[in-house]
Amino acid sequence: MTRTLTNEISAHVGETITIEGWLHKKRLLGGLNFITLRDRRGLAQTKVEDKSELEKLRGLQVGTVLALTGTVVADERAPGGAELHDVTVDVHVPVTEEPPIEIDKPISHKSENLDTLFDYRVLNIRNLQEQKIFKVRASLTRYLREYLYGKEFVEIDTPKLLAEATEGGAEVFKLDYFGKTATLAQSPQFYKQIMVGAFERVFEINHSYRAEPSATTRHLTELTMLDIEMGFVKDHDEVLDLVGDMTQTVLRRVYDEHADDLKSLNAPQLALPEDGKVPRFTIAEIHELYTKATGTDTTDEKDLIPDEERWIADYTRKEHGSDLVYAVDFPAEAGKFYHKFKDDGTVAWGDLLFRGLEIATVPLRENNYDKMIEQMTAKGLDVTHEGFKFYLQAFQFGLPQHGGCGFGVDRLVQKTLGLSNVKEATLFPRDINRLTP
Amino acid sequence: MTRTLTNEISAHVGETITIEGWLHKKRLLGGLNFITLRDRRGLAQTKVEDKSELEKLRGLQVGTVLALTGTVVADERAPGGAELHDVTVDVHVPVTEEPPIEIDKPISHKSENLDTLFDYRVLNIRNLQEQKIFKVRASLTRYLREYLYGKEFVEIDTPKLLAEATEGGAEVFKLDYFGKTATLAQSPQFYKQIMVGAFERVFEINHSYRAEPSATTRHLTELTMLDIEMGFVKDHDEVLDLVGDMTQTVLRRVYDEHADDLKSLNAPQLALPEDGKVPRFTIAEIHELYTKATGTDTTDEKDLIPDEERWIADYTRKEHGSDLVYAVDFPAEAGKFYHKFKDDGTVAWGDLLFRGLEIATVPLRENNYDKMIEQMTAKGLDVTHEGFKFYLQAFQFGLPQHGGCGFGVDRLVQKTLGLSNVKEATLFPRDINRLTP
Repeated sequence: MTRTLTNEISAHVGETITIEGWLHKKRLLGGLNFITLRDRRGLAQTKVEDKSELEKLRGLQVGTVLALTGTVVADERAPGGAELHDVTVDVHVPVTEEPPIEIDKPISHKSENLDTLFDYRVLNIRNLQEQKIFKVRASLTRYLREYLYGKEFVEIDTPKLLAEATEGGAEVFKLDYFGKTATLAQSPQFYKQIMVGAFERVFEINHSYRAEPSATTRHLTELTMLDIEMGFVKDHDEVLDLVGDMTQTVLRRVYDEHADDLKSLNAPQLALPEDGKVPRFTIAEIHELYTKATGTDTTDEKDLIPDEERWIADYTRKEHGSDLVYAVDFPAEAGKFYHKFKDDGTVAWGDLLFRGLEIATVPLRENNYDKMIEQMTAKGLDVTHEGFKFYLQAFQFGLPQHGGCGFGVDRLVQKTLGLSNVKEATLFPRDINRLTP
Repeated sequence: MTRTLTNEISAHVGETITIEGWLHKKRLLGGLNFITLRDRRGLAQTKVEDKSELEKLRGLQVGTVLALTGTVVADERAPGGAELHDVTVDVHVPVTEEPPIEIDKPISHKSENLDTLFDYRVLNIRNLQEQKIFKVRASLTRYLREYLYGKEFVEIDTPKLLAEATEGGAEVFKLDYFGKTATLAQSPQFYKQIMVGAFERVFEINHSYRAEPSATTRHLTELTMLDIEMGFVKDHDEVLDLVGDMTQTVLRRVYDEHADDLKSLNAPQLALPEDGKVPRFTIAEIHELYTKATGTDTTDEKDLIPDEERWIADYTRKEHGSDLVYAVDFPAEAGKFYHKFKDDGTVAWGDLLFRGLEIATVPLRENNYDKMIEQMTAKGLDVTHEGFKFYLQAFQFGLPQHGGCGFGVDRLVQKTLGLSNVKEATLFPRDINRLTP
């Protein structure tokens, strides 16, 4: 018999249908024997009246794969407003051992409990609440892609195995590559800038690797990044506008299409600016506002201190009705060799904060070859190093003004759902202590 | 002035517009001075009449980033049917050195020339013909995703850093992970099977790593795979049908939407079966047909010999009008521990051949825990090994019958375009000898 999915049964009242899935709950109350079945759409309740059918389930545990055939009866108390009666049971895969965790009950996400969450990931991902996190995640990456396709970005696919570490040598994973040393890419930045010379607008969603020995709520050793780069931009604003518009569009869409999921996960209400423009404050402005409001003087700091990130997020939500805020124009000393430095002693670099967490860095790049050489030399880099050869070639033979972003997909998922640790937004997180499951 | 893109200029005949891009060609013929500009949409021809404007380009080479402002004049001989006259020149980024390759001329893809192709990738990707390969590639992955979204597959994102190598130990890259040894994933197979227990239908497009010391036209050390897994399948046919339908749908769409690109790249004509069903032959049938046709007896071989792959591809194209063919039911001794073995001495495993190259393996899995333990033990594997713990947990607590595929994205691109080496389908290929650019 053709399989009916659990959320479709109410359309078949009076008919005999078959549902397939996992034994999710068994309540045997003497004469009333309820079996709840789980499939990819959700749950269905069934009543097993026949004793010989019930006998087939003796000793079988949650997780047993089975088909249930019965007559659909409308019942308001059942999930989906209908249940199956007079059920016959067909066991496909018996499970005889009791699972070590309750599938029906989500594992707590409290910080002291996260190891349990990940140690039992194989089974707790069968919990319907836990699944919603990763359905939302799948939609977020899908909508990011769709937004960028619509703006003529070409999706590229660049290697993660590199010959040389070009930045941050200490935090790079190294491996033996047929007797040579290879490293794992910390970001596709050089490749995406090179590709601006061909396609003008490119993006990639893929893994980046950071051998950071720190275990915080913000860090993973293997993370998923959306990297964007776009050429022929008039100014930094054009890049900030695109990334801001993308983020708002994608958030609006996920809040719309996953409204029920977000509600049941207690995700925060979404607040986006009415005029569609993410509020922007320079680092100097934030220092000034913060110092005035709190009495703690930060005007000499080059970066935002963590409490300032939280504070400006609260301020922007209150004053501008926005969960998103840009902190722009970092002091020049914070800039890297590939950034565009401005005449006023700042660097054309913005951080996009979402609910108080930096989810993207959005800089404009230096695109003039001679200036690049100058900036690299000033930072003590050897411009003749083999690891820079191909990157510099792109500049030498003409790159337009360009900018882009490194956008943390894991962090976007985390803050969309109001999770307190980025690992909760990841199926199988990797950190200094965790390589399994 | 607002930027007009090159393929839009014919809509502005009589108007003064600005185009921006790269100096692509300069032909100075005394009185007639033509400048061709390249942008992301293609090329535009312009005429520079004013000597002082021409002077701005003295000594500047291909790649120079510039804006050209002029009046649009219809001209059938120009690309797009119009060109710019009376042009004023605004140089954004001067290039003073002549590029080491001609951008206007595609680098030959002859096998003896591939190293040149990749050594100059940074610049040859600026060639419009070369770009088409990667636009087709971006569309193929996009359409694969869209097909799977439409069939309720959830996109998952699984780690490439693993604690243990679980198969093919010799061909695994190893790295130092904070004093422990980690390996790079050869495939997400264990993870996708685990996820069947939650979402029933999952897929992932991501990199896989194979430390194969062989340098062939088929192999990469870092490859891009589409991994699919689907549960609650009735039989192997259901999996073969889905993967076959997906491949045909995606190929039809790319042949339709990239018709001009494919034509100009001399891609082969697409031949798909009229009834939409990919022809299937068992390994035994292919051996028999081949032996009869060629006189070479292969009936004792367990796998197809390479010439048989070519032969059955030709045969299927001639007899069934199809570029795709399934070779199914491998002899049991070819099967792996996670395959479903059939009673007739074969394994429920199909290879999808596209124009003579295996692009996907499409097996049904053993899903019964006790049988898995039995099959693993028979293959000499230690079922108590830490590396199998989480994988086996998924089976122990109930997995439905499932199957899927490992689908080579690089190979799909290669054979779609009729390229002779898989590396040509890859922006920055990695093999035993190549880690740069």
